[in-house]
Amino acid sequence: MIKTHPLWDTYPTIQASLLECLELIIEKITIENKEIEQTVTALIESQGKLLRPAYLLLFSQLGSVSKDTHKKIIAAAASTEVLHLATLIHDDIIDESDTRRGSETVQSKHGQDVAVYTGDLLISVYFELLAEATDSIDLIQLNTQSMKRVLMGELNQMSHVYNTDITYTDYLESIKGKTAQLFELSCYEGAYLGQSDPEIIELSRSIGQDIGIAFQMLDDILDYTQTSEKLSKPVLNDVKQGIYTLPLILGLESSKEAFLPLLEKGEDLSDKELDSLVTLLHDHDCIERAHLTAKQYIDKALASIDSLPDHSGKDVLYSLTKTLLTREE
Amino acid sequence: MIKTHPLWDTYPTIQASLLECLELIIEKITIENKEIEQTVTALIESQGKLLRPAYLLLFSQLGSVSKDTHKKIIAAAASTEVLHLATLIHDDIIDESDTRRGSETVQSKHGQDVAVYTGDLLISVYFELLAEATDSIDLIQLNTQSMKRVLMGELNQMSHVYNTDITYTDYLESIKGKTAQLFELSCYEGAYLGQSDPEIIELSRSIGQDIGIAFQMLDDILDYTQTSEKLSKPVLNDVKQGIYTLPLILGLESSKEAFLPLLEKGEDLSDKELDSLVTLLHDHDCIERAHLTAKQYIDKALASIDSLPDHSGKDVLYSLTKTLLTREE
Repeated sequence: MIKTHPLWDTYPTIQASLLECLELIIEKITIENKEIEQTVTALIESQGKLLRPAYLLLFSQLGSVSKDTHKKIIAAAASTEVLHLATLIHDDIIDESDTRRGSETVQSKHGQDVAVYTGDLLISVYFELLAEATDSIDLIQLNTQSMKRVLMGELNQMSHVYNTDITYTDYLESIKGKTAQLFELSCYEGAYLGQSDPEIIELSRSIGQDIGIAFQMLDDILDYTQTSEKLSKPVLNDVKQGIYTLPLILGLESSKEAFLPLLEKGEDLSDKELDSLVTLLHDHDCIERAHLTAKQYIDKALASIDSLPDHSGKDVLYSLTKTLLTREE
Repeated sequence: MIKTHPLWDTYPTIQASLLECLELIIEKITIENKEIEQTVTALIESQGKLLRPAYLLLFSQLGSVSKDTHKKIIAAAASTEVLHLATLIHDDIIDESDTRRGSETVQSKHGQDVAVYTGDLLISVYFELLAEATDSIDLIQLNTQSMKRVLMGELNQMSHVYNTDITYTDYLESIKGKTAQLFELSCYEGAYLGQSDPEIIELSRSIGQDIGIAFQMLDDILDYTQTSEKLSKPVLNDVKQGIYTLPLILGLESSKEAFLPLLEKGEDLSDKELDSLVTLLHDHDCIERAHLTAKQYIDKALASIDSLPDHSGKDVLYSLTKTLLTREE
């Protein structure tokens, strides 16, 4: 029996649709080697938050969803999650991560070769589901453009590795691609498939972008403030790999000389030095300033949601977004 | 000035269209980091044989290609090559290859992380080009199914690594996926976009499969019979990695006890032992028998091409296929 993240216990209608998505994804992924299939299924069942499909479903509800379109919307929602899972599997190769959401990663269990092809396989399933969701070539094109931007964001981030001159603008550019793009797509696609009015469809795109940006900023803050147990993933990983995110970038922009001696160690940064770095970030109010930066995007997203026409779906959207963007894990 | 493989000097019309494909691919791949872009461009310009787009173009000519459909067919042809390039970039991660067609690989020049995302980026460009080529969701679905089978073939091959019980049927299953599938798709898609008669479209699919199977078998034979200079890639690589292909499988099926002592060394097989393995394959007529096996598929493909309605494109198809499938490099 598949379960969703406890977050959805408060929203039983969305929860039911998310379970349909998960079942559809599992149905689509058949791998002859059952051990590999099992690892992928474990990832699917590992109670991720399913935010991308959830936003797609929520935005579709603002329009008119007939029984016939329901199946298509489930397929579209599932497709966004599958693309996200594909990027997770490929990210784990790059990060050489052993665990993800408490389970062993594909690369750690079956080797990076299997992980490369399994991620690719999921990309094919992503387009398979998408083609089941829509007859519109325009929507397929929109997805290819989004996927392209996600990868540009990832490659972009890589060109800034160990770059102490990285700016807030570079960071924003990179998270707009690697994270916000897929939120933007999910919200837009939901509104589009739900046949909302054109101005609502356009607004959904910018709400998605703001949510995605805020979500990534909070994620980057948590990497410095939380324990790995609470997050079920390693913390302070990014900085060791030379990926400098919001709190550190704010520190570098305002007081470079304070951070340089530590950052110059590059990948040789010891655990003790990492602790000093975190202390330094607190000393320079970087965590607080990062929260304030994220808050601008949170407030903008909530105000835009509030401006949507009245609808029961709108209230869920508001309450969910508020919960998500004040999360501490 | 981009050039094509010398193979195409004999076929100037196809050559001109292939150059259009390459230009279109280069136009679609823009990466902010210009060094990475340069490495990908070098791969595109490295004079690969461009067989998949060439077959797509040739099969499209059997039907009716108006000036308007020409652009779409170029986009479709380019898409098959881009998917092939994506798999090459990802294969090089798995094989840890330093060079490909004489140039440094993405993974060797920029690291495996960049190679993972660059391959993914090319998959998004593959679907982008495809969506420019067709309004048919059916054709998109067909492509997602093909891509899925290619990756199943790769994963399938991996589950047989170092498996001395591997059979000819396992091998055939795996190359039908990892290689023949994309040839099948290219031939089918060409005939479909050229609006050939339904029976021609169906026949094109099976011709593509036979060509793909024969092509992979010849490739696997060359791995045992050619020098790495002539092939511009390392030889005897597969067996060291536990990938047992046609000649060796024929040997294992007929005289297992002769091969087992060497294969039991697994990845520790020395260069001297590799030489002994090649001698053993010759002693057991494995190379000759592999050639005979491939010949069945070559003959079948050529007979099917011969059965196509008379057309100037048909003659080119016949002569090209004959040349390709009697290649020695």
